[in-house]
Amino acid sequence: MSCNPLNLIMNPSSISIVGASNNFRTMGTIQFLNLANCGYAGALLPVHPNEKEVLGKKAYGHISDLPYAPDLAVLVVPTRLVPEMMEDFGRLGTRHMVVITAGFKETGDEGLELEQKIGEIADTYGIRFLGPNCLGIINSHLPLNITVGPLQALNGKLSLASQSGTYIAQTVYYLHKNGIVLNKAISVGNEANIDIVDCLEYLAADETTKAIGLYIEGIRNAGRFLDVARQVSRVKPIVAQYVGGTEAGARSGSSHTGAMAGPDYIYDGLFEQAGIIRVDTIEEVYKIGWALATQPPLKGRKIAILTNSGGPGSGIATTCNTNGLEVPEFSERIQQEVGKYLPGHASARNPVDLTFHINMDALTEKIPEILFASDEIDGIIIHGIMDTGFIGLLYPYLKNYLDMTQEDFNKMSEISMEPLLKMPGTYDKPLLISSFFGREDHCIRVFHENGIPTFDSPEKTAKAMAALYRHHLITQRSSNDHEYMKRPIVSEAQSILSQARSRTIDEYNAKKLLSLYGVQTTAESLARTLDQALDLARAIGYPVAAKVNSPEIAHKTEKGMVYLNIADDDDLKKAFLSITASNNTSVLISEMLKGEREFMAGISRHRGFPPCIMFGMGGVFTEVLNDFSIRMAPLSLYDAQEMIDSISAKEIIGPYRNMKPVNRDSLAHILIALSQIALDFPDIQEIDLNPIIIDTGRPVVADALIIMK
Amino acid sequence: MSCNPLNLIMNPSSISIVGASNNFRTMGTIQFLNLANCGYAGALLPVHPNEKEVLGKKAYGHISDLPYAPDLAVLVVPTRLVPEMMEDFGRLGTRHMVVITAGFKETGDEGLELEQKIGEIADTYGIRFLGPNCLGIINSHLPLNITVGPLQALNGKLSLASQSGTYIAQTVYYLHKNGIVLNKAISVGNEANIDIVDCLEYLAADETTKAIGLYIEGIRNAGRFLDVARQVSRVKPIVAQYVGGTEAGARSGSSHTGAMAGPDYIYDGLFEQAGIIRVDTIEEVYKIGWALATQPPLKGRKIAILTNSGGPGSGIATTCNTNGLEVPEFSERIQQEVGKYLPGHASARNPVDLTFHINMDALTEKIPEILFASDEIDGIIIHGIMDTGFIGLLYPYLKNYLDMTQEDFNKMSEISMEPLLKMPGTYDKPLLISSFFGREDHCIRVFHENGIPTFDSPEKTAKAMAALYRHHLITQRSSNDHEYMKRPIVSEAQSILSQARSRTIDEYNAKKLLSLYGVQTTAESLARTLDQALDLARAIGYPVAAKVNSPEIAHKTEKGMVYLNIADDDDLKKAFLSITASNNTSVLISEMLKGEREFMAGISRHRGFPPCIMFGMGGVFTEVLNDFSIRMAPLSLYDAQEMIDSISAKEIIGPYRNMKPVNRDSLAHILIALSQIALDFPDIQEIDLNPIIIDTGRPVVADALIIMK
Repeated sequence: MSCNPLNLIMNPSSISIVGASNNFRTMGTIQFLNLANCGYAGALLPVHPNEKEVLGKKAYGHISDLPYAPDLAVLVVPTRLVPEMMEDFGRLGTRHMVVITAGFKETGDEGLELEQKIGEIADTYGIRFLGPNCLGIINSHLPLNITVGPLQALNGKLSLASQSGTYIAQTVYYLHKNGIVLNKAISVGNEANIDIVDCLEYLAADETTKAIGLYIEGIRNAGRFLDVARQVSRVKPIVAQYVGGTEAGARSGSSHTGAMAGPDYIYDGLFEQAGIIRVDTIEEVYKIGWALATQPPLKGRKIAILTNSGGPGSGIATTCNTNGLEVPEFSERIQQEVGKYLPGHASARNPVDLTFHINMDALTEKIPEILFASDEIDGIIIHGIMDTGFIGLLYPYLKNYLDMTQEDFNKMSEISMEPLLKMPGTYDKPLLISSFFGREDHCIRVFHENGIPTFDSPEKTAKAMAALYRHHLITQRSSNDHEYMKRPIVSEAQSILSQARSRTIDEYNAKKLLSLYGVQTTAESLARTLDQALDLARAIGYPVAAKVNSPEIAHKTEKGMVYLNIADDDDLKKAFLSITASNNTSVLISEMLKGEREFMAGISRHRGFPPCIMFGMGGVFTEVLNDFSIRMAPLSLYDAQEMIDSISAKEIIGPYRNMKPVNRDSLAHILIALSQIALDFPDIQEIDLNPIIIDTGRPVVADALIIMK
Repeated sequence: MSCNPLNLIMNPSSISIVGASNNFRTMGTIQFLNLANCGYAGALLPVHPNEKEVLGKKAYGHISDLPYAPDLAVLVVPTRLVPEMMEDFGRLGTRHMVVITAGFKETGDEGLELEQKIGEIADTYGIRFLGPNCLGIINSHLPLNITVGPLQALNGKLSLASQSGTYIAQTVYYLHKNGIVLNKAISVGNEANIDIVDCLEYLAADETTKAIGLYIEGIRNAGRFLDVARQVSRVKPIVAQYVGGTEAGARSGSSHTGAMAGPDYIYDGLFEQAGIIRVDTIEEVYKIGWALATQPPLKGRKIAILTNSGGPGSGIATTCNTNGLEVPEFSERIQQEVGKYLPGHASARNPVDLTFHINMDALTEKIPEILFASDEIDGIIIHGIMDTGFIGLLYPYLKNYLDMTQEDFNKMSEISMEPLLKMPGTYDKPLLISSFFGREDHCIRVFHENGIPTFDSPEKTAKAMAALYRHHLITQRSSNDHEYMKRPIVSEAQSILSQARSRTIDEYNAKKLLSLYGVQTTAESLARTLDQALDLARAIGYPVAAKVNSPEIAHKTEKGMVYLNIADDDDLKKAFLSITASNNTSVLISEMLKGEREFMAGISRHRGFPPCIMFGMGGVFTEVLNDFSIRMAPLSLYDAQEMIDSISAKEIIGPYRNMKPVNRDSLAHILIALSQIALDFPDIQEIDLNPIIIDTGRPVVADALIIMK
């Protein structure tokens, strides 16, 4: 990945900026103000037509006046000037740029044209650039800050790539208040040249980046995103928010960066398959990202909760449970050890509740030591550690009774937490802190300085712990190798498709194609005449099904063109005559399967995405039950198995009541076959297998529809 | 409600406290410190055996030394002293107390006994008390504060009742940072005498309380809670968190206040029926509660979003959509009006995105005025209003270039927001603010001072707006009158139950009982002999079902004791002989219904709750689909209709595909009948109607099980 353009963009030794002046009311000036004061050690070369100096740095009248080609050029200029200036930098020899300027694709056709134009200019000169319509970059390790918000701390561990500039440029102080320090942060803007997948690759390779946060309005190339993310996520946690999955979210995104959104369920599948931890808020991108970046992995589900109060303990406990974590009652031994430090009426069962009669030493050292050392638990959450934040509030009252300045009073109140700070590292277990106090409390500041995440609500702390476990599970995933099928069958399948006389392939031929890929379908044949139908039915054995077999007739059930459970010759005769009365068509005579469980599977295509494979509850209520999972082709066997396990009603796949367990391998094979078919035939728009009936454990496709593009 | 003991507890004219001293390391002293300094205007009478004065107030050596009976006594003393002191106060004539002391029911049997003892003492003297094991009370209007945290502001609008003291006593500063001012706050502790329902009644009647927040670990008397809450919620919003619905949450609660928890789904039903807005975090109790307390009602779904940044706009937009709100694209006219204030590349469609080229005037006045005045929208969310919080961060850099103190610089940066602050009142529409800045920003402080809620994340702002709409819907509910049925049938039903020879009532008799209550069941009769069976089948008409009819045989389907779709005499003979081969029992011969849709309904009982009525998806997959709603008896017609509409798969109730719409009145009648049966027969432990088959629109109970206590 040494050719990733971000290597240089994030680590330039010289930067030229056009659009900064000495007028602090312009954005370019504020960005340069931050750049010039952030501690950046490289050369700064502002360009300005009139000013001799900009913020005390020598300014150059024109790009062509620059003494050498800077590693990085930053443009914060009127839209119409961008193409020319990009050419100027190109001629000079600069190969990396950040285009802050907006007014391109996000504004409509004219802007799109201009964006294409600067793309062409960049290609001509071999320039790689971020933006346009972005808000800059941060590298707190260099340091380097080309955003409107001043850096509050250096050497962070969480890196971000964002399709909203605000989340890079405008939240630095918010993050500081929450103890979060960014490492690298990249506002990608319209992604005309460098996209969010480039960022992901760059951050994956960046050693000081311990976790990656993404804010996404729409992914352009989901296939490449998936390929990269699924490799990265096995070693480095990725947490992402996607906002384009609703009508209003999609509209907002397209106004904003011209992002191409897709339905929420597609992104659910994409993120699941990629091993990305999906969250619903930007707060979670930051805070859960920070927990992932700073804490040892949570290697099991068992969480200890230690508090000075029952309410937060209950909130943490119940949120752990609802997010798949356990809060096991401690063994007698641990309860006894912990009990030594508790007042008489407090509980040592887990949550441990010290009650308000606080022994701070017990809360910050003695009990944590017991819990960290115990093999009964995998991670620890503590609520209630506090000193100056709480006690400082009382000072205005206390000063009437004490002879002490607020400073001395606070100093006296500060507690030591050295032993606790070391425990996560020593025992290789995560520690998360819940507190209603912020940096006004000395303990919180100490936690922040030592990279222990703090959360201002009990429930958020528990949700972050659950994300740590989710990451652990992702790292444990078995091989993700794609299961490509042997393909002597392609030409035979092609000939079936070629014979089709309409966009829709009839059921008989659709099933024949599936059979070629090893998918089990109902035993059946076509009858042109009643005699053929009777012969077929007798051969298959009653009861049988009779259905119209015409690509032109959709919704055949609703149209009365499907007869099920036909018991004998008489009934078959009636069915055949009824179907053929109004249609000059052949009739499909199929075996009639008995099975209480019905599933569905299919292929759908979405712009910008690899073929999507679906699996879910089938039958007549498929849409209403809305219980399905989705993954992108090519599927690995692991993907297919996970799809099966992802539906809510998965219990019925096992031995359910008196039913035989579903043959999971056969079910997974159907999904892998669909993946292969989707890759083999890009002209197939959609496949719908519904129902797949479970016949004493064996999944059999009872109806199939293929629609060509 | 003038007799509610909280009227005096929250508004005492004199207070005695036992347990405060001049040692600031004790909780009692800190509570008295806050009480003595909060601005409370009544008399304070500390009791202390040794000190002459406590925090400068004359102290009395013993309760009996007090010059008169104080309105309120507060105990923060060792557990063993509580009974005696309660008696002392009782003798003196004090009738209201707050018992902070812990060590009662929550610690086990001994503590429970002691709690019962103080309950008896209280009854003897007519004392009403909060606690034990609570953390005090706040009345910011009196003012009065008997907690460990100093009041930060007065005259709040949101009142709380909490089963965790922390959420009353330890979050005042957290709330202050978030601009939230409590009105009344009550820590209920173990609820030995006054319970959370008393609090709800008190707060409902309190005029200055505009919204009520509840933190719940377990409700003792759900019936009374429901009766009170459903009346209150129609006029005053109630928001509640319940944490006892998981294994760990229930354990934590019982360690904490000895609360009696129940399954989460029961509380879901209880809250729905009571019109309570359920939230998952204490943060939401506070912040959503504050929005409900301060803002005009949101009378429709249509939300306008105005931001200075696309990311937060998208986050708000998508969260609005996923929470049932609309973000409609504005009309051409509004877009044109709004567009006047936008830079060229910004969007006026909704969200309105000013982009970072901020015209603060547009964000705080011009565009809001257009949006508030428009009948296209019902509520407004703004993100990005800021001044000193953002600009102040730059001062450390700017001071090198400017000749100005930070104070002057901040002063200069402050913007005016007078017009915006008036708009919610003027237009009777809610305004919510999203900002990554807190009180370090002057704008945020102004919003706080003017009761405009601010949220530190875009998505939270949208969720709060959705809660405002939820409240509006609750106020629009039609009459909640219970539908009591006429009851000449009770004695007949009683005789069916009396004849039962086991805890389980057989299917035939169960259905007979249901029929008495007007529930449609399958046409059927019992056959003792094969000949009877054949006669019955012919009378009913083939196909029929034959089932064992024995209260002793559960899971009859799994045991092969149910034959469906019997087509003729031959098959019936086989079925009859098979069923009777191993059982000397009668056989139920029933009509065989055709129907693709199957529902279930039932009665279950849970300790502390009225009878629970369930409705959901039926058939063999009921447990797996897990799609049901629950309400408490007595059901109103509205309750029953809402239960039907609450299941996820409700779409299949309407005309679904080619199916006839389900007769909703008949379905609702089944639920009301169950409610009535549950009330008429307290000895019925459980009723299970599954499946209820929809026979061309008509719901018919095809199987029924009644289990007695």
